[in-house]
Amino acid sequence: MASNSFGHAFRVTTFGESHGPAVGCVIDGCPPNHALDLAAVQAFLSRRRPGQSKLVTPRDEEDKVEVLSGLDLESGKTLGTPICLVVRNQDQRSSSYDDWHHIYRPSHADFGYDAKYGIRAWQGGGRSSARETVGRVAAGAVAEQVLTARFPTLRIVAWVERVHRLDARGDIDPLTVTREAVDGHPTRCPHAQHAAAMETAILAAKKNGDSLGGYLRLLVHGVPPGLGEPVFDKLDALLAQAFLSLPACKGVEVGSGFSGPELTGLEHNDHYRWDGDPKAMSTSTNRSGGIQGGISNGMPLDLRLVFKPTATVLKPQPSADDAGNNVDLQAKGRHDPCVLPRAVPIVEAMTALVLADCWLRQRGQVGDPWPGLDGPLKG
Amino acid sequence: MASNSFGHAFRVTTFGESHGPAVGCVIDGCPPNHALDLAAVQAFLSRRRPGQSKLVTPRDEEDKVEVLSGLDLESGKTLGTPICLVVRNQDQRSSSYDDWHHIYRPSHADFGYDAKYGIRAWQGGGRSSARETVGRVAAGAVAEQVLTARFPTLRIVAWVERVHRLDARGDIDPLTVTREAVDGHPTRCPHAQHAAAMETAILAAKKNGDSLGGYLRLLVHGVPPGLGEPVFDKLDALLAQAFLSLPACKGVEVGSGFSGPELTGLEHNDHYRWDGDPKAMSTSTNRSGGIQGGISNGMPLDLRLVFKPTATVLKPQPSADDAGNNVDLQAKGRHDPCVLPRAVPIVEAMTALVLADCWLRQRGQVGDPWPGLDGPLKG
Amino acid sequence: MASNSFGHAFRVTTFGESHGPAVGCVIDGCPPNHALDLAAVQAFLSRRRPGQSKLVTPRDEEDKVEVLSGLDLESGKTLGTPICLVVRNQDQRSSSYDDWHHIYRPSHADFGYDAKYGIRAWQGGGRSSARETVGRVAAGAVAEQVLTARFPTLRIVAWVERVHRLDARGDIDPLTVTREAVDGHPTRCPHAQHAAAMETAILAAKKNGDSLGGYLRLLVHGVPPGLGEPVFDKLDALLAQAFLSLPACKGVEVGSGFSGPELTGLEHNDHYRWDGDPKAMSTSTNRSGGIQGGISNGMPLDLRLVFKPTATVLKPQPSADDAGNNVDLQAKGRHDPCVLPRAVPIVEAMTALVLADCWLRQRGQVGDPWPGLDGPLKG
Amino acid sequence: MASNSFGHAFRVTTFGESHGPAVGCVIDGCPPNHALDLAAVQAFLSRRRPGQSKLVTPRDEEDKVEVLSGLDLESGKTLGTPICLVVRNQDQRSSSYDDWHHIYRPSHADFGYDAKYGIRAWQGGGRSSARETVGRVAAGAVAEQVLTARFPTLRIVAWVERVHRLDARGDIDPLTVTREAVDGHPTRCPHAQHAAAMETAILAAKKNGDSLGGYLRLLVHGVPPGLGEPVFDKLDALLAQAFLSLPACKGVEVGSGFSGPELTGLEHNDHYRWDGDPKAMSTSTNRSGGIQGGISNGMPLDLRLVFKPTATVLKPQPSADDAGNNVDLQAKGRHDPCVLPRAVPIVEAMTALVLADCWLRQRGQVGDPWPGLDGPLKG
Repeated sequence: MASNSFGHAFRVTTFGESHGPAVGCVIDGCPPNHALDLAAVQAFLSRRRPGQSKLVTPRDEEDKVEVLSGLDLESGKTLGTPICLVVRNQDQRSSSYDDWHHIYRPSHADFGYDAKYGIRAWQGGGRSSARETVGRVAAGAVAEQVLTARFPTLRIVAWVERVHRLDARGDIDPLTVTREAVDGHPTRCPHAQHAAAMETAILAAKKNGDSLGGYLRLLVHGVPPGLGEPVFDKLDALLAQAFLSLPACKGVEVGSGFSGPELTGLEHNDHYRWDGDPKAMSTSTNRSGGIQGGISNGMPLDLRLVFKPTATVLKPQPSADDAGNNVDLQAKGRHDPCVLPRAVPIVEAMTALVLADCWLRQRGQVGDPWPGLDGPLKG
Repeated sequence: MASNSFGHAFRVTTFGESHGPAVGCVIDGCPPNHALDLAAVQAFLSRRRPGQSKLVTPRDEEDKVEVLSGLDLESGKTLGTPICLVVRNQDQRSSSYDDWHHIYRPSHADFGYDAKYGIRAWQGGGRSSARETVGRVAAGAVAEQVLTARFPTLRIVAWVERVHRLDARGDIDPLTVTREAVDGHPTRCPHAQHAAAMETAILAAKKNGDSLGGYLRLLVHGVPPGLGEPVFDKLDALLAQAFLSLPACKGVEVGSGFSGPELTGLEHNDHYRWDGDPKAMSTSTNRSGGIQGGISNGMPLDLRLVFKPTATVLKPQPSADDAGNNVDLQAKGRHDPCVLPRAVPIVEAMTALVLADCWLRQRGQVGDPWPGLDGPLKG
Repeated sequence: MASNSFGHAFRVTTFGESHGPAVGCVIDGCPPNHALDLAAVQAFLSRRRPGQSKLVTPRDEEDKVEVLSGLDLESGKTLGTPICLVVRNQDQRSSSYDDWHHIYRPSHADFGYDAKYGIRAWQGGGRSSARETVGRVAAGAVAEQVLTARFPTLRIVAWVERVHRLDARGDIDPLTVTREAVDGHPTRCPHAQHAAAMETAILAAKKNGDSLGGYLRLLVHGVPPGLGEPVFDKLDALLAQAFLSLPACKGVEVGSGFSGPELTGLEHNDHYRWDGDPKAMSTSTNRSGGIQGGISNGMPLDLRLVFKPTATVLKPQPSADDAGNNVDLQAKGRHDPCVLPRAVPIVEAMTALVLADCWLRQRGQVGDPWPGLDGPLKG
Repeated sequence: MASNSFGHAFRVTTFGESHGPAVGCVIDGCPPNHALDLAAVQAFLSRRRPGQSKLVTPRDEEDKVEVLSGLDLESGKTLGTPICLVVRNQDQRSSSYDDWHHIYRPSHADFGYDAKYGIRAWQGGGRSSARETVGRVAAGAVAEQVLTARFPTLRIVAWVERVHRLDARGDIDPLTVTREAVDGHPTRCPHAQHAAAMETAILAAKKNGDSLGGYLRLLVHGVPPGLGEPVFDKLDALLAQAFLSLPACKGVEVGSGFSGPELTGLEHNDHYRWDGDPKAMSTSTNRSGGIQGGISNGMPLDLRLVFKPTATVLKPQPSADDAGNNVDLQAKGRHDPCVLPRAVPIVEAMTALVLADCWLRQRGQVGDPWPGLDGPLKG
């Protein structure tokens, strides 16, 4: 059943298989009259492009985005109509994947697709490939533009906090990390020494045909209070769906997360305080991660995600085929020895999609400005 | 914007505030001709009922469910039409909450509601109260019945694995835990000694006006391979949304989760093997938690959730009011010193809702049986 | 699959069978802080209540609405949370319908329900009864209030234009009809002589155990330009869905409708003209019925609906049962000899639901005011 | 807000403006393992192609469809993943439309788009152009294939029944019309003499810069009983939405439609009868048009649609511009003097989309076969 769309008001539908003609997306519901910065969309896509460093898959894809619809031909402004963005697949070496035709790669989606559909695009993992995220990143880049046009202080920044057992958490001040600092190193860890150690570890794993997982941290500054729908579509619930829908993501925590129970309620609670200006609410601590009861409270969003070590490894492994035989698989081809660096822009894009959708939904029901934005709190 | 529904094919809409006339749900899309065991629905509701032990809030609610629609008057079978289930609120001591009228309780949703809507039902937390989950549990109880009628070996079981710093993980074999064992102790930890220690800790916190958080573990046995939609509505993504949409839940991990990066890819991969019968696929390990590429693979679903310590504590705390003043709040009234025991049936109910929805979506697109269920894998 | 909801942003879900415990609805997405006039909702419901005149079914239902959720307990204002409205069924004489238990009533939904679900609530037609529209009317009454609070000149008025072969069209000026004039006669035809003739015809049909159909006309004044979504959710497309989803409605036409082809394009086109004020656009004629390209243009919405003669007639008719036998059916019980009078408030309610949904969707994507409302046309 | 998708289980999203780079669609939810006949999709598209006869617009578009995703690269079978179909725009003579840049064409959507979005693609009507229906027709062609693979006797056939005042109704037996007969004449009226008269009338109007409207009749044979969702998504309600969402369509009637009230209930009712085989239900007459209570009853679907005379006419007309001036418009360029012939495949495509969606929704909730299909009626 239709399940390739995300969002209700700002809705993206992605399409495409890894080795089919193209991947892309349709954005439905984008506000009209936004002068789209297409170069910025392209730049965002290039941040997740394969082949950008020796840490990632050498698949050679230019990932040039083409706009098929939704923009005014003269001004380049959004029309309010669906924006279709397409990226052609170029470097498709299906032959590298011949072994995958009938064998289920361990910890991959191959068996699941066969169990579900009775057919799968085995070349390069088909739709389960991380290549599907091209459409998400293109759409997220549009969402981010539209958001920051309305909320100029909104800033989404994710970074690699841990690779394998190398954890940089203690040495990074989350509130000061910038996207520029993150992109300054191919690992996308903003701390130089940790980044260097991570790079060494990733290259060693690569050389060994092995792979590594890790943690990714996400901060969002400038989120106005009042975003998120308070029951099933809580802001953190939508972010959790968004992130767990990414290949290799196996967990998410918000604010204090899995460390929260270390404290008691008296120790754990965030205390409100007005900072002079009756519109400037903050909390003394941010164990809530900027979200309470599913609604943003104006503090930075703070989440952590875990990505498992890449399932593709280049050593023989026991597996099974689609004819009932237990066989060994010798994977060949290209792979990311660690998905974390390229996951950074993807996570940022998904965050932008969630926030853009929550914004338009909020504006639909309550209007704009809403109480927590610029007006009085009580109606 | 409309956001109080969950699911596409088996869709539940909840309604109701903590201190309004009633809470409940409408289930839309339930398969027809299912002989509903209403007593079982009531029993499921009683598992989350307040007042069931000294570990939980003493609010005295019978939580008797009334069916307003959707059942055949003679046979009690589902008609395929919407099932409206209502539970009247009874023990509403709003006066206990007078202090909350204008003061934002720390780490609660009060400020968020005001920031979003400019109005909130302050009595008992209104719709942000855990009382909203009555509708979810009632609907989940129906979903579980419908699921097990079709998949007789499907079994959903959650339990309390950790409270504060007391962690029972190492002493519990997840594969053997039963709902009966879990319900055998008011903590809903199935290990007697750990349960006793947790109980002592919770009662001590209660006496101190304090509260505790912890971990909840979820296993689902008998899930057929092929459930879950492979992009945005991955099975784990929907579960993550479902759980993060619960009050006080701050994180979720699937399979190896946040421990996954301890291993390298070669160590972490689950290896497929056919077990004689060409339909019986299993994996040597289950670090995937029963889900790969967002699709169930036939192994048990295995997830862990974290719940923060209850935000309601009965000691003075600094806070702020809705008029721009920083004030102290002395919370009164009733509360759960630890939400974990009552969260168990709620998490099981949400799991049933996700699985029922995925099943009907799968049946819609692919038919029943689908390849991974009883037929040949390849079409 | 879930199909008992209507609308995306202002969404109503109805539930209930004719002879079950209750009928009602959940409204999800209603703007917060609206002081709900519950008496007006009750008054709207009373307009569709059975037993209000000898022209309609004598089923004796008070149709008293109860609010289960979504309102502030003190102020009666909407909270922005789901509003559940319930009306208990009272006068359920199932015995009158024993003959329907296994026999399919001609031109009714009985066979369809069995063919679809393998089960049906045969008492009183179950969910296919016009009683299901109670939930729609209650929700529509709320929608109308919310709409007119924002758009004070918006006015929805429907009336009976034709019964059987008695057509009042030529004698009624559509632009001047008021709801008060319509409700002034039990036929809900605002023209006294025609109304009297229709009444005589309906009573004659009733006496004969027969029934009559007819046309209903709908005008909506004060619709701001820019409502309606331009592709699948065109304003007229949504209205058509709304009306064809009503029992007994068999057709809808917009503006010139089925008479349009009488004219050529040169004759048929509506010509725009600015009326002094650069915001006051009108058209010389209104053959478009206020909608062009699916979007309101500021002229009155003008539609016509046809309702077939009530399928329930009280004379023997050949039919078939659910065991494969061809049998005669002698219908008993109560029925509306003509559904048109009671259809008037139902159609108005559906119109309000469509417009409220379109408004919130427009506000979500474009903001409020949007270009056609108060601002400059070009961004 | 997102509004460019149609259907829930078999969902199509269209994109594209008349003079943008491309038009197309994404089909989400198509059943897997269907060997797609791409030539048949192309042939369906060619039936709505401009330039196919002197009766339609001379715009020269090859309308060659490209598949970007969703098909197995080797077998051409559907993967169950989104199918993106793209048609490049070729013959874009924007200069012909320079006059439209700031002037609102009478009875067109231009003013509505500006009132809604504050911006519009004025070249060729942008997204309000009938060119948007390319994506619908491509998707409908896929839907029809999938449907007939499951329901071999299902047959969708529409034809031109009336042009201007030339009505062929009385001379055509609706039950015997075939698509081949319809396509046998450029008017798509299957009655030779009437077709010839219509052709003459259309060419005369064309020569005069004028345009004509008319009626289109739709029959669907072989629809299994039980399709359609019984409340808001009634089969006829969805068809009405589908058709009213087409450019220039101003009305729809089902079965007896606007003629129904000519008869009384006793005269109008369709009487059921079993035809020997206890699975073969039929009705003596088909005034219901194959749909009762929103659910198909196994009789042919029978609907009539009206299309207004094309709004584009090539004579001067009074109009208004986007700067507040009343001006005359001299339309130039290409147009269809009568949209009816090309509307035939578009209406058939929309019908296939509705039926495919209803089928998958029915299969999701009830399974396959459902009671009315091959099994016993009562569960």
